[in-house]
Amino acid sequence: MDHVKELSKLLTEDQVTTNQTMREQHSRDESYHIPSLPDMVIFPKRTEDVQKVINYANTYEIPVVPFGLGSSLEGNAIPYKGGISLDMSLMNQVLEVRPNDFLIKVQPGITRLQLNKELKKYGLFFTVDPGADATLGGMAATNASGTTSVRYGIMRDQVRDLEVVLASGEVIHTGGLSAKSSSGLHLNGLMVGSEGTLGVITELTLKVHGIPECIMAARATFPDPGRAVEAVTSILAANIPVARMEFVDEHSIRQVNIANERNYELKPTLFLEFHGNEAGLKQDVEFMKEIVSDLGCMDIHFEMDTKSRAELWEARHNLAYSFIHGHPGKKLMVTDVSLPITELAGAILHARESIENTGLVGAVVGHVGDGNYHALVMVDLADQAEVEKAKELNELIVLYALERGGTCTGEHGVGVGKVKYQQKEHGAAYEVMKSIKHTLDPKGIMNPGKIF
Amino acid sequence: MDHVKELSKLLTEDQVTTNQTMREQHSRDESYHIPSLPDMVIFPKRTEDVQKVINYANTYEIPVVPFGLGSSLEGNAIPYKGGISLDMSLMNQVLEVRPNDFLIKVQPGITRLQLNKELKKYGLFFTVDPGADATLGGMAATNASGTTSVRYGIMRDQVRDLEVVLASGEVIHTGGLSAKSSSGLHLNGLMVGSEGTLGVITELTLKVHGIPECIMAARATFPDPGRAVEAVTSILAANIPVARMEFVDEHSIRQVNIANERNYELKPTLFLEFHGNEAGLKQDVEFMKEIVSDLGCMDIHFEMDTKSRAELWEARHNLAYSFIHGHPGKKLMVTDVSLPITELAGAILHARESIENTGLVGAVVGHVGDGNYHALVMVDLADQAEVEKAKELNELIVLYALERGGTCTGEHGVGVGKVKYQQKEHGAAYEVMKSIKHTLDPKGIMNPGKIF
Repeated sequence: MDHVKELSKLLTEDQVTTNQTMREQHSRDESYHIPSLPDMVIFPKRTEDVQKVINYANTYEIPVVPFGLGSSLEGNAIPYKGGISLDMSLMNQVLEVRPNDFLIKVQPGITRLQLNKELKKYGLFFTVDPGADATLGGMAATNASGTTSVRYGIMRDQVRDLEVVLASGEVIHTGGLSAKSSSGLHLNGLMVGSEGTLGVITELTLKVHGIPECIMAARATFPDPGRAVEAVTSILAANIPVARMEFVDEHSIRQVNIANERNYELKPTLFLEFHGNEAGLKQDVEFMKEIVSDLGCMDIHFEMDTKSRAELWEARHNLAYSFIHGHPGKKLMVTDVSLPITELAGAILHARESIENTGLVGAVVGHVGDGNYHALVMVDLADQAEVEKAKELNELIVLYALERGGTCTGEHGVGVGKVKYQQKEHGAAYEVMKSIKHTLDPKGIMNPGKIF
Repeated sequence: MDHVKELSKLLTEDQVTTNQTMREQHSRDESYHIPSLPDMVIFPKRTEDVQKVINYANTYEIPVVPFGLGSSLEGNAIPYKGGISLDMSLMNQVLEVRPNDFLIKVQPGITRLQLNKELKKYGLFFTVDPGADATLGGMAATNASGTTSVRYGIMRDQVRDLEVVLASGEVIHTGGLSAKSSSGLHLNGLMVGSEGTLGVITELTLKVHGIPECIMAARATFPDPGRAVEAVTSILAANIPVARMEFVDEHSIRQVNIANERNYELKPTLFLEFHGNEAGLKQDVEFMKEIVSDLGCMDIHFEMDTKSRAELWEARHNLAYSFIHGHPGKKLMVTDVSLPITELAGAILHARESIENTGLVGAVVGHVGDGNYHALVMVDLADQAEVEKAKELNELIVLYALERGGTCTGEHGVGVGKVKYQQKEHGAAYEVMKSIKHTLDPKGIMNPGKIF
């Protein structure tokens, strides 16, 4: 059976390719995980195309790995068992905007910046901001979050409805348009974060927000990381509705300065943002200034206008790329644990010590308002000793988090990198997850080897 | 096999009863749904007790219906197939408070007011407020919400972790302590709202909030319901972070006045509440006053102090009871649809017309910020014609909502009352829900006849 030929007949010839360059592009993501080639890449243009591919793949037991932009960080979209890389980039349209319902319906291949460009016309924005200009389908698949979730929630919180093609070829809708529902089982939540292991997302109806009346950003520097993190917990405890609250250590600041031609002071820093009405925001900011000053904040610098605010967050968002570009020949290994907020200070100190013990170039940054932080280290994949050190570091950090009620992945997903911690994190619940996977995908064609 | 005797041996004798009064108390909820007696009532004291009961019940295929306080409104806890009513009221302890993590771990039998009494010591509160002093286990089982969810989210949004005893007797934890996670499948969301059909909740770890610096409540009256609802959509569109926003029609105001000795004006009214810092709240309230005045608001009355605010919300919360007490011999039938916010005004007008067509005593109230409203009618269950009219009204209202992307139940759950709309609302996804139910409870012992 010539699967490529048969699938080309089911769709059109230009939608199915075995081109080597194309296969290579779909063999990797932005992580240190080892690439693996798909047998072919398919570009569906509509839900019916996805259905045809899945029906065919299910019949012949061919693995199907949905692919957004390849910005994943745990090998989530790498086709380790070959088969089909299902590239959703041609399905990138806005299908419907309902501004007064604060809803937008899109196809999965649309990216975050494309979406926000469309929403701006209506005075609206999409809150989830993982840094990368990822596709919305990919963000839903991994349950992405990022800098703003401390205020607006994670990807799962924004999904009102998904259209999903199941392994059976059946097309389902997981939710509805209403802001809340107690009807049936919560399939929205089940599908978000399932990383393509239960089905392919072909449409998303997402919650959007009005652009706030006032936005203010600030950089606050501290004498040591401990006091910076203490400021985070104090700001949360004071009930200040901060919209972003990022910890950036001095090693990261150095990289930010080099890559962005800044001269930020080389100190542990909080990048903060506040959203609100003018009067409320002013009071919040005054209160925040008192709190951080009590904790030894050395300097606080406000970014008042849109441009300088954008520059601040660009620097933060490009941090991972800054490390990559600053260390040619090396790959980025990034951890992604999240812990209860009271365990965060200890976790970050432990991570910094552990990085120093490896002798690798590294840093700690984090979405600290959620208890989520990343340890970044640069690794030469050809140097087995370096690779081993990075893996040990990841393991140390994950085990530290799990022992304290945390999770092995706050926002990057399980992919292949975190499969080995699933049993430890979820215990008997992991069997329940496996049984659901088996019920919905009995032949195991959907992104095999990921999560399970 | 004498199941009562065997189960008494597995637990202690006083934990298992067939007492007629006790069985009757567990045969009904607060709705018009017809009561049905359990064969016995069992009072577990710990997770192990629940495990023993479930293992026994699964072996002998005895139905198990978890029971909180019986405040459900769709027959959710009525044991229509007999068997065991599993009363969780003895498991009502606070297990752990982690104030700086904004978390509390409780047993399922604790009620909302008990929980908030405990939290107040820490300057914290639990946001979900369905009116009734329901148990937290019951609230999680039905995915309850109520007046505050427009700001703080529904029950599902507050659940960080659940301990659940499955039909297999296995005990699982569905989540963790971290504010976010992308690890594994989202079992938290699946269990919340599953109404005891997938397992018995034996522990809940819940997100709590700091008590806001300022709270202000108001009553705003309008010349007609259309303009009141238009004010709701305008307030939302203006990005004002309102904490409660309730529509109460003039029929309901009449009942409120009688039951609570008030003299609120007999006009369509919005009950509003704002939470925030002092300066921000003041600006929000000023803006809101402009908006409602542009829409013909006739009078706006603020409740400034804690006592008068409490009285306002007490009146709102007691509304259903006011109708019940005001119409002895009749039972309350209450609809519970939720729609996209732009469809709400039409839906409420349609509901009011439909109530008038029945000739029954009735009213419309609603958590309108979420698009969720209730039509209440008083029904003499002995009068078959009245019962039929009420059922037709429910059906009309549900179909109106479903045709517009809404849901048949915003917060009361499916129980038995909404089973017949599940296929229509969820389509092919209903089969997926059924397959998950079958996977987790192959013998169908967990609250049989509910949702499925």
